[in-house]
Amino acid sequence: MKVGIMAIGDELTSGMTQDTNSSYIAREIVAEGWELSGMLIVGDDEEAIEKGLECLMKQSDALIVTGGLGPTTDDRTTASIARAFGLKLHMNEEILGRMKKGFQAFGLPWSETNAKQALFPRGAEIIANPVGTACGFSIDPGDTIIAVIPGVPREVYRMLPEGVIPLFKRRFGEAERRRARRTIKTFGITEAEVAGKVGDLDGASLGVDIGFYPRFPENHIQLTAWGDTPDEIRETLAAVEHLIVQRLDRYIFGYDDDTIEGVVAALLTEKGLTLALAESCTGGLIADRLTNVPGSSLFLERGVVVYSNRSKTEILGVPAETIDRHGAVSEETAFAMAEGIRGHAGTDIGIGVTGIAGPSGGTPEKPVGTVFIALADADGTRCREFHFRWGRRRNKEMSSQVALELLRRLLRGVDIHG
Amino acid sequence: MKVGIMAIGDELTSGMTQDTNSSYIAREIVAEGWELSGMLIVGDDEEAIEKGLECLMKQSDALIVTGGLGPTTDDRTTASIARAFGLKLHMNEEILGRMKKGFQAFGLPWSETNAKQALFPRGAEIIANPVGTACGFSIDPGDTIIAVIPGVPREVYRMLPEGVIPLFKRRFGEAERRRARRTIKTFGITEAEVAGKVGDLDGASLGVDIGFYPRFPENHIQLTAWGDTPDEIRETLAAVEHLIVQRLDRYIFGYDDDTIEGVVAALLTEKGLTLALAESCTGGLIADRLTNVPGSSLFLERGVVVYSNRSKTEILGVPAETIDRHGAVSEETAFAMAEGIRGHAGTDIGIGVTGIAGPSGGTPEKPVGTVFIALADADGTRCREFHFRWGRRRNKEMSSQVALELLRRLLRGVDIHG
Repeated sequence: MKVGIMAIGDELTSGMTQDTNSSYIAREIVAEGWELSGMLIVGDDEEAIEKGLECLMKQSDALIVTGGLGPTTDDRTTASIARAFGLKLHMNEEILGRMKKGFQAFGLPWSETNAKQALFPRGAEIIANPVGTACGFSIDPGDTIIAVIPGVPREVYRMLPEGVIPLFKRRFGEAERRRARRTIKTFGITEAEVAGKVGDLDGASLGVDIGFYPRFPENHIQLTAWGDTPDEIRETLAAVEHLIVQRLDRYIFGYDDDTIEGVVAALLTEKGLTLALAESCTGGLIADRLTNVPGSSLFLERGVVVYSNRSKTEILGVPAETIDRHGAVSEETAFAMAEGIRGHAGTDIGIGVTGIAGPSGGTPEKPVGTVFIALADADGTRCREFHFRWGRRRNKEMSSQVALELLRRLLRGVDIHG
Repeated sequence: MKVGIMAIGDELTSGMTQDTNSSYIAREIVAEGWELSGMLIVGDDEEAIEKGLECLMKQSDALIVTGGLGPTTDDRTTASIARAFGLKLHMNEEILGRMKKGFQAFGLPWSETNAKQALFPRGAEIIANPVGTACGFSIDPGDTIIAVIPGVPREVYRMLPEGVIPLFKRRFGEAERRRARRTIKTFGITEAEVAGKVGDLDGASLGVDIGFYPRFPENHIQLTAWGDTPDEIRETLAAVEHLIVQRLDRYIFGYDDDTIEGVVAALLTEKGLTLALAESCTGGLIADRLTNVPGSSLFLERGVVVYSNRSKTEILGVPAETIDRHGAVSEETAFAMAEGIRGHAGTDIGIGVTGIAGPSGGTPEKPVGTVFIALADADGTRCREFHFRWGRRRNKEMSSQVALELLRRLLRGVDIHG
């Protein structure tokens, strides 16, 4: 079966917003073993929506439409689709009542403009929205079934697997050949180096599709396999994964939905170790990333963002003389920061990061992008120096990523140098 | 004039690669004052390409096609387009010679498969590629001119402005009516409330297009105006902006590329005030956002992430008794955190944030999403209590946004309550 995707919104056709929904939907459709006929983006314009429907329907058994279901007048998807198929709109009183109750429960003021979101084409089946106010709907006017959902990504992530795909399965049955994916996540190696190490693997003869995807600052390798049974696919994927792990082991920090902060958090929790952070150039980003992991209060005792020299001395006990002699951005200061935070917090591990994120603050000896990262534990303190070459935000992201990777290596008992 | 965009590639329809070219091209087209008819993505498939061309051409005066010009057999764009218009392919010997020389110059081995990239439909005009091997081309078979360029983003970034846009200008002339945008950014008001307050403004009669865009946790209003001269457009936008500001003033924190952290940073710098942060549930996110702004070391003295009760007492001097009696998540603790960090850091302003980000840690009296934010300055300390209802990350984002907004109000001398 062939599925078409249509995304609707002036913010998409103006290039203001990147449509990421269609790409996500395509992955899920292909993972179900269905084919994709095409992905179209049009503005909030009745004529463009109608002509787009016409084009995509010719080549599709099913259509997924996202966007243009908001309460404001510039959202025209429901009305355009109803008109295209000669269907009248009618108010769904049950949905309207539920929306009003929802607003009340959250203490939000009800406005009559919201009632627009309870209007659906006559005969439409409702697609529930578990995370937002706008429900989706489907109509099945003939050769092509059409499912319409809001364009908010977090709503798409729920409504596609929970509403749309089950609907299509009821209509078309399961696809015969199944497909599965495995993503191998590396850090500390460039895309070209990854290709150099595993590029000779012949996906076709191994029965998998091997894709390389840079995801700053990481590089991901994605394996896709098709087969008749889940077991068959699992075995194929495992065999190729094994070959890749042999060649890239030291650079692999995780798989599929893993994040480096999640991996580090799991290791700290498993080992019952505590951590404290002293950040300068990363400005709290390491603490922010680690505290995105539920349960991080179990290991993260405290973090400090020591932007001023005075705070480095006062909170961490970095000697003013160290800063005077070697500079706030130096191996000596990073050492003292890591040891200072570990001592004050009484944790198993202390991390100190100091550097120059840019755009200003660089010198000929210490250019923008110079970063020192020190890790202190019961075995001592080690420090590494790095030179990054991006803008301020990317330098912060890369520094936080390297700090987490060094911590991962320390926790895994791997050499943090080299 | 209306321009359509078609991106070709199996990696796009499989969802493995996000198409960012079309969004970039759309921005450039709109900036030229032209209109966008639609953006279509199809796979490397002759039939899909042909049908896609047919659909887009009906609604477009010009078409930009990207992708599928590589040397391998799965790249089928040139052949498909030639077939669609009944044009024969012929080898461009000049281009072929240039390609061979280029390979030699870079020490790359020449392979006959590369010769495919010197094949063009008869009558095509060549579009030079200053940064890659694959040239683009254009054909002008009737109502719609079609420009075809490779899909590599860095090649698109050169070939669109240097090759395609000049070609369209030669064919259609400069756009007569120019266009400009103004984005008004609000926070603290829902999309429906925004619509309720300004939804009656009739864009058509005011000469602007008014769009509403939720950007969690903000709501943006985008004004687009067309006109014959820049002055005319500027006046139209300013008049409508004035109407909207009158109605939404208290919720507007910035315009166009402004961020709330950037606005707060500018206010602090302008007033010569210093800031220190004591974060619990936001986990360093406020510090991270403020330190994304270049020059933030001028006002941010320090930040602390006090995840443990011990760190709240040790670093901030929050009395253990306060935490015991009222809880770590309480107005009293937030007060003591804000005052403690301000006193220790010796800054003009201190902010304390404590709450329950979730998913666990909630109680019937203090459910997940309960957050207290306190601001201390020379005039005293104020605290507000909030109840958010999202997941962990969004609760962190919303809490950091509210803290920055309260700080903005304090700096602007506006009441932080209500």
